[in-house]
Amino acid sequence: MTLSYAPARVGMTLADVDTPALLIDLDAYERNLNKMQSFADGAGLQLRPHAKTHKCAVIAGQQMALGAVGVCCQKVSEAEALVYAGVNDVFVSNEVIGAPKLERLAAMAKLARVSVCVDDADNVDDLSRVADRYGVALDVLVEIDVGAGRCGVATAEQAAKLARQVTAATGLRFQGLQAYQGAAQHIRAHDARRAAIEQAATQVVNTRRRLEDEGLDCEIISGAGTGTFAFEAQSGVYTELQCGSYIFMDADYGRNRTETGGYFHDFENSLFVLTTVMSNSRPGVAVVDAGLKAVSVDSGLPLVHGMESVAYVGVSDEHGQLDTTRADERVRLGDKLKLIPGHCDPTVNLYDWYVGYRRDRVESVWPIVARGALL
Amino acid sequence: MTLSYAPARVGMTLADVDTPALLIDLDAYERNLNKMQSFADGAGLQLRPHAKTHKCAVIAGQQMALGAVGVCCQKVSEAEALVYAGVNDVFVSNEVIGAPKLERLAAMAKLARVSVCVDDADNVDDLSRVADRYGVALDVLVEIDVGAGRCGVATAEQAAKLARQVTAATGLRFQGLQAYQGAAQHIRAHDARRAAIEQAATQVVNTRRRLEDEGLDCEIISGAGTGTFAFEAQSGVYTELQCGSYIFMDADYGRNRTETGGYFHDFENSLFVLTTVMSNSRPGVAVVDAGLKAVSVDSGLPLVHGMESVAYVGVSDEHGQLDTTRADERVRLGDKLKLIPGHCDPTVNLYDWYVGYRRDRVESVWPIVARGALL
Repeated sequence: MTLSYAPARVGMTLADVDTPALLIDLDAYERNLNKMQSFADGAGLQLRPHAKTHKCAVIAGQQMALGAVGVCCQKVSEAEALVYAGVNDVFVSNEVIGAPKLERLAAMAKLARVSVCVDDADNVDDLSRVADRYGVALDVLVEIDVGAGRCGVATAEQAAKLARQVTAATGLRFQGLQAYQGAAQHIRAHDARRAAIEQAATQVVNTRRRLEDEGLDCEIISGAGTGTFAFEAQSGVYTELQCGSYIFMDADYGRNRTETGGYFHDFENSLFVLTTVMSNSRPGVAVVDAGLKAVSVDSGLPLVHGMESVAYVGVSDEHGQLDTTRADERVRLGDKLKLIPGHCDPTVNLYDWYVGYRRDRVESVWPIVARGALL
Repeated sequence: MTLSYAPARVGMTLADVDTPALLIDLDAYERNLNKMQSFADGAGLQLRPHAKTHKCAVIAGQQMALGAVGVCCQKVSEAEALVYAGVNDVFVSNEVIGAPKLERLAAMAKLARVSVCVDDADNVDDLSRVADRYGVALDVLVEIDVGAGRCGVATAEQAAKLARQVTAATGLRFQGLQAYQGAAQHIRAHDARRAAIEQAATQVVNTRRRLEDEGLDCEIISGAGTGTFAFEAQSGVYTELQCGSYIFMDADYGRNRTETGGYFHDFENSLFVLTTVMSNSRPGVAVVDAGLKAVSVDSGLPLVHGMESVAYVGVSDEHGQLDTTRADERVRLGDKLKLIPGHCDPTVNLYDWYVGYRRDRVESVWPIVARGALL
């Protein structure tokens, strides 16, 4: 229903792209894609990238072409947008509550392999009933809370009870455990991040053992994010990595530290907000056209890419304020700058289009089909 | 290009609305509309509400039907979305930089009265050229920075120079001054807010006098927001109020104080995010389905409407965490709660639809036509 102009056309130069626009440096992005898939392959793990990061069927397709077994989604409508575009294996790595969403989840299983999380017995009953009504089978993972303090059951006993219920229910197939430690992704210190995942892995092992005691096999143990995937892989417990942000990175991930104390740089910043200087009538200040509605600030303000002497210091709804008092080069009205978003996922959700480029030439204009998919 | 299901149908009860959904309490909203228009009428001022808050042609139409002279927009594409839906007077209360936007601004002036701000001489030349090429007249206000530290010139001298240039240019009509003190809107203390606007008004008076000395009349002095409009009105200087948030309010405006030290309550909260409890497997915690992508947290976390004993204490991309340890009533899986957003404008920008209701019945499902209008 919304007017949604694409800010660019394939073939134009970056200088002609209207702003604010969400850019992908395609070379860096492709290196990121390949690097994570190679890592998963080398570790003998399945990669199921989280599509909540990109919300784009083209990107999901590229990830699967490289070897990903499917994608994760966080909302039923997000999964629908991708399935309708041809993605054939989606894991809603979240609980699905309420009749409208359950109906759509089951209907979607006629088009694709669909899996989902549970942490509640009544919800298992609801899922079984709706799967039966549509004549489909839903794959189910029991979610355990491994420290994120969000969804998921707290004890192995609760997990075993739900797994038994799922196994006994018609229309459902018990697949294993969802064990994502979301709170660990942005712990800055390497050792503390590793410790958080070791603790999560211990909890997974205990839960898995409890299930095995009852003859319940966990074919899949799914989890891990861009901040911790190496630790989940090392644990020997997880079978599937669900990293999302690695394709783009952001300023917040860039503040994580490596083992030797340096900044985390396994992956490259490939996502930028292109913005224009729209006012510079006062010395030392430049105002750009990317504010709160163009770059999410929940994890801090954006950085100005390639201009370390210029800082983005203030944000309002439609404006960003740059401090240019220490700028090495003059910032002029109409100049276009690249911002590195503080947090990639909610920034992507503000846009309808990606503008992909190589060197200074636009090569792709991809729709963000699941932008705003809240339901 | 995005999938955009409406979360409700007219006639259903709120209990059946899918979540997260953006709700308008229509009774409260209409009282807010009428109250601000009555205030402006009583003060003998024009009301030109800011449409960056609502981004909705239906709401713009209702504001103008009550007496508003037009609306403000903050982006050319936002103005286009409204003009294409029939709004015939839009003020882009912002600088418009770069050829693609200038072309569209001028083209739009064939469909509606279009006004715009300037703070740069080259930009005035660009506007004049493009207006001539389209054979239209653009109304122009010179923006002065009255304390927001964003766009706008700093001195009366600069303002006079630009006003002379606009007056001399073909295709442009000098209308007056844009003098919005955005930084004052959320100053908590009543006296400090008043002082900030008194200072802004003094600056406006000095600038206006400087222009009058050169025979340049300011027909319009435009400014004011929901936090300060009474002060701009009292100043006797402003001719036009451009408040936006008054129609909805939010948690952040609710923290402003009145003259007697109470909380600001001239307008009612009419905007809510309806959310569902999607996990409550651990005591004292309930997880709702409205996170960062459903409610903007730039000005703080949302409040839980009508449940003072329950606090929204944590947010991640798709989840909100409620502390229910002190809850007066039990919070159950599947319960639907109303959240008061921390900041209305960027929250609205996350949705494609408003669900308007009276008592517990859905009465309207309005498209947010300028959602995501960044260009």
